[in-house]
Amino acid sequence: MKDHLHEETLHKERIYQGRIIELENHTVRLPDGKESKREVVRHPGAVGIICFRNDKLILVYQYRKALGKVIAEIPAGKLDEGESPEVCAVRELEEETGIKAGSCRFLCSFYTSPGFADELVHIYIAEDLKAGHKAADDDEFVEMAEVSLEEASAFIEDGTIHDAKTLYAVQYLQLQKERSSSRPK
Amino acid sequence: MKDHLHEETLHKERIYQGRIIELENHTVRLPDGKESKREVVRHPGAVGIICFRNDKLILVYQYRKALGKVIAEIPAGKLDEGESPEVCAVRELEEETGIKAGSCRFLCSFYTSPGFADELVHIYIAEDLKAGHKAADDDEFVEMAEVSLEEASAFIEDGTIHDAKTLYAVQYLQLQKERSSSRPK
Repeated sequence: MKDHLHEETLHKERIYQGRIIELENHTVRLPDGKESKREVVRHPGAVGIICFRNDKLILVYQYRKALGKVIAEIPAGKLDEGESPEVCAVRELEEETGIKAGSCRFLCSFYTSPGFADELVHIYIAEDLKAGHKAADDDEFVEMAEVSLEEASAFIEDGTIHDAKTLYAVQYLQLQKERSSSRPK
Repeated sequence: MKDHLHEETLHKERIYQGRIIELENHTVRLPDGKESKREVVRHPGAVGIICFRNDKLILVYQYRKALGKVIAEIPAGKLDEGESPEVCAVRELEEETGIKAGSCRFLCSFYTSPGFADELVHIYIAEDLKAGHKAADDDEFVEMAEVSLEEASAFIEDGTIHDAKTLYAVQYLQLQKERSSSRPK
């Protein structure tokens, strides 16, 4: 699509290969023939899972080193190698909250930062909920919360909810609510 | 907030300082006393601006090197040093589309990838629209499109719209539409 906007890779240099991300520096040929540089972060991809139970959205508080603060997010995590997003979504929900989803439904996927990173987040909604077994990763410390949509809006106002996937989740649930309330009875 | 979840920085190493991003590797003390590593990408922050005119959302097609494809996004760009997000939003809209916003209103901000990056995106809605002067950056090639909300939904389905801020914009407009149609006449 829109081939005339493409940038041709002239040279690619790996700057860093880490635990989770890799950093590359690309030299590209622009559509007008000139050269430029593009910094690219490679990421394995992630999932977020919307779990809505008894009119409450399930969130987890987690300290985020990049932000230097704790925020409340929908349960989420990065894909293990070879893992399907659906399996990852169910696994992360159970590990972080102890809630087991009998099934989950795909809603959408989005790139978080297309300007410099290839991280793709897949969003699912949890269904057929039952009790499971909480078991966070060794270096992951999370605390669960359950909030109404009104409380979630207040969390957005005060910065407790402050990330893309959780804002998506709140908007998604608000839309579902508006649409169900405007349907003819 | 939730101080017991905090991670103390024991050591910080700068891996890379680039044109747009910086990469750091942090050694941290976890809440249980153990040590771990955190990769952190520093980013100057960005804005996205929702411009809705004659029932159409303004998008720009742009090749994204990190994704290796062209996607359609709301006009956006990174903050220049010392620039206010509001000024940046109006500037990026005009540069990328030739539309001048007499004013703009703040809607929300969100971290795109709290797991590894501090990029914060500020979302504005453009108001008091008039003709301006298109003038993209030297290394930026963009093409404007105007789509209805129905066309935007189809773009989400087929992956033409595929990033967090543009999904936020579409859901925001869908919510406004639902709420205005359900208001008592």
